[in-house]
Amino acid sequence: MDQRVSLVTLGVGDLGRSRRFYEGLGWKRGNRDEGVVFFQIPGGVLALWGRHELAAETGLRDGGGFGGIALAYNARSRQEVDAVIAEAERAGARILRHPAETVWGGYSGYFSDPDGHPWEVAHNPAWLFDTQGGVVLPALS
Amino acid sequence: MDQRVSLVTLGVGDLGRSRRFYEGLGWKRGNRDEGVVFFQIPGGVLALWGRHELAAETGLRDGGGFGGIALAYNARSRQEVDAVIAEAERAGARILRHPAETVWGGYSGYFSDPDGHPWEVAHNPAWLFDTQGGVVLPALS
Repeated sequence: MDQRVSLVTLGVGDLGRSRRFYEGLGWKRGNRDEGVVFFQIPGGVLALWGRHELAAETGLRDGGGFGGIALAYNARSRQEVDAVIAEAERAGARILRHPAETVWGGYSGYFSDPDGHPWEVAHNPAWLFDTQGGVVLPALS
Repeated sequence: MDQRVSLVTLGVGDLGRSRRFYEGLGWKRGNRDEGVVFFQIPGGVLALWGRHELAAETGLRDGGGFGGIALAYNARSRQEVDAVIAEAERAGARILRHPAETVWGGYSGYFSDPDGHPWEVAHNPAWLFDTQGGVVLPALS
């Protein structure tokens, strides 16, 4: 199994509402299928699909709420963290934590999308970006 | 907010157990920090971190179990789907669904990692791969 994740699927309660939320952040949908929304991201795809369908497909029982997975968006500066958190709030996100300095020497805040999926928005001065905006871990010395 | 996900963090109950599971799939850790494990993936990072810490960090209440997010690994053939599912099972994964044809014209199965996080392993004949193994949506015509 190669070291990669092709797709992250967020289960949603209302596909139109969730699509509009991400489009409100400036994202462009990459498919025209009914019932599922794909966004091309560097290295893979972020998908929106019905949470009930996703639970049924995996065979897992869905107790609702948080499931121990968070997404993160790395910004190139602290100012960009503040700007993205403000943009998400304008698009209807709930702010879970306002940006602040972190114990690991960076700066981050959290919002949640219309289904409660958490996104960290972070500036980590030790991490690099590739030309497509993907993050690159520093080499192990 | 650019269209990207920098990091996917899986909350885990036992960091050593989860690290060994992913290393058992052939993955190489990209950091040496205590308390968190990073794996470089195309476009970003897959992180393992304590589920309690992740819940506390986001401020979300964790009822346990599935939270409506699934990861997927796209394979280049049906044979590779079968091989990856078998490899995951040997590494200790629970098989949630054995590979079978899908309604969307592909072939996929599901396993879950030691913390129950679901992974689909899929072959989608309509999706392309870039040189790093990242998936690329077909152009909208």
